[in-house]
Amino acid sequence: MCEANAYLIEGDENELIMEAVDRIEPEEDGIKLVSIFGDQKFLKAKIHSLSLVDHKVFLKK
Amino acid sequence: MCEANAYLIEGDENELIMEAVDRIEPEEDGIKLVSIFGDQKFLKAKIHSLSLVDHKVFLKK
Repeated sequence: MCEANAYLIEGDENELIMEAVDRIEPEEDGIKLVSIFGDQKFLKAKIHSLSLVDHKVFLKK
Repeated sequence: MCEANAYLIEGDENELIMEAVDRIEPEEDGIKLVSIFGDQKFLKAKIHSLSLVDHKVFLKK
């Protein structure tokens, strides 16, 4: 499975926001994350970068 | 490996832009895609959505 972990970049630290992220949907004022289990999270953030081979999604405020 | 294919949504059609995408980096005026082979593409587009389990990245102008 190719789900990823989503991290929020805060200064020099990366805070783990959600594991096993499947779907990522940027919206008007933030971003929606949906895990492979169907859990949803909405964050007032945007995509900084993705590294799919590393299974990592980086978000920033 | 968890690379994905990147598609540009154009009307009802999805145009395959790049295969085997590893890194995705939104920039000021577009988006940079880097494949697992190191190929780079820059597109004047933004992320519509990602479906990691399906290995799909959808972009839109």
